[in-house]
Amino acid sequence: MPSFYLSGMKKEQGVAEKEFVAKADELYLPQLSIDCVIFGFHDDQLKVLLLQWIDSNRWCLPGGFIFKEEHIHDSAVRILKNRTGLSDIYLKQFFAFGDPNRARGKHVFKSSSLMKGSDWLMKRFVTIGYWSLVEFSKVVPVPDEFSKECTWCDIDKVPDLILDHNQILEKALQSLRLDLNDYPVGKDLLPEKFTMPELQRLYETILGKTMDRRNFQKKALALGILERLKERKQGGAHKAPYLYRFDTKKYKKALKEGLKFGI
Amino acid sequence: MPSFYLSGMKKEQGVAEKEFVAKADELYLPQLSIDCVIFGFHDDQLKVLLLQWIDSNRWCLPGGFIFKEEHIHDSAVRILKNRTGLSDIYLKQFFAFGDPNRARGKHVFKSSSLMKGSDWLMKRFVTIGYWSLVEFSKVVPVPDEFSKECTWCDIDKVPDLILDHNQILEKALQSLRLDLNDYPVGKDLLPEKFTMPELQRLYETILGKTMDRRNFQKKALALGILERLKERKQGGAHKAPYLYRFDTKKYKKALKEGLKFGI
Repeated sequence: MPSFYLSGMKKEQGVAEKEFVAKADELYLPQLSIDCVIFGFHDDQLKVLLLQWIDSNRWCLPGGFIFKEEHIHDSAVRILKNRTGLSDIYLKQFFAFGDPNRARGKHVFKSSSLMKGSDWLMKRFVTIGYWSLVEFSKVVPVPDEFSKECTWCDIDKVPDLILDHNQILEKALQSLRLDLNDYPVGKDLLPEKFTMPELQRLYETILGKTMDRRNFQKKALALGILERLKERKQGGAHKAPYLYRFDTKKYKKALKEGLKFGI
Repeated sequence: MPSFYLSGMKKEQGVAEKEFVAKADELYLPQLSIDCVIFGFHDDQLKVLLLQWIDSNRWCLPGGFIFKEEHIHDSAVRILKNRTGLSDIYLKQFFAFGDPNRARGKHVFKSSSLMKGSDWLMKRFVTIGYWSLVEFSKVVPVPDEFSKECTWCDIDKVPDLILDHNQILEKALQSLRLDLNDYPVGKDLLPEKFTMPELQRLYETILGKTMDRRNFQKKALALGILERLKERKQGGAHKAPYLYRFDTKKYKKALKEGLKFGI
């Protein structure tokens, strides 16, 4: 049993971890969980938030369960907040994972003494995946008393995770990359005023590929959500580049209605 | 209780409908369901498959439950097959709906005698939505003994449906339309050989808008999945238009890896 479930429980409900198994059936929807893929961007790096169990070396995604009268979206918001301290963050539900092998009872977990005696936890779980993209310098990753660590991991250095968590991460990354075509990205990740090369590097980092400068600029401007400022960026050896900022109203409209980047 | 759930049960498991309530707990995952939005395309029309309960005038989407050891995708495939006779159809999981008000016990259903005495059915259900897009002339809609009708409904004439089924339909339509940018569409919906105007009308019908002819042709050809044939379409008053067909290999690759239509 990933310990952060217990901790999340304890902190929110004041229920001691030893009581979890007895209380879970009463408090949570059965056989259904949430897993969060929290991507962090900072300084041209893409990372993902992982937890390491206290009683083994295995890593996993932050996750949790759904209170019986809680909206599933609110569960995801709660989990994100517990692990990062952040709220008001865009959370995207991207896929539900429903392989019947998603059952802790079907897998051997070393030293997972916490799981013993819990039929509730050992059953098959369908999990609903959410991803978010945050500025990771703004995050204080919060392990709980059952995690050794809650930490950022470079996206290309992710170890072997429990259950199907590597697949969940992969699917989240696909979803994030597809979303770059359909929704705006960058607010909360870039400074308020930024240059076109800075915006391009954000897209390149997420997509994991380089793009033609002119083509990118043409397409980015065609989105109609950028405002070019009169001031230019100071410093640097080259000609000072223009500064841009997002038009908040148009950005929010695009988040709702979608756009077509075509990258 | 939507009667098609019972019927699906009866046909597949040989369990009489009266035994459903007693058996459901044993056979299915609790508080989790599947709903299918089955879009039909034919002759420039977009429709959706609906069921009408035998004991009321309410309409709903085809749906069902997940056997305890069944993959959720297989549940969706099974439901699609039961209602349409079709298999080998692309099914897209698009969203899980998790409002705590999704509980039959919280809503009044007229004459829903079938639901009485069933705690299992009256609880809150999270439902996972799948959509598919089929050639509706190939479908024989199959009502069950608890449905008055299983029939196609024009997309702009859909009545008030049970629970949040109108929202589910709306979200499926959004997902389908976004997907037109990211994945190829048309195989199984158009004849093997088709003209560019026929392909354009398919897109226009799904998107619910008209598009510029030249711009559409340019973008469609840029996808790299179309093969222009030497023969032209015969008949008609105008100059005979070229015929095209999908390059099956490239089409399948695009289904897997995605593409960028930019429409």
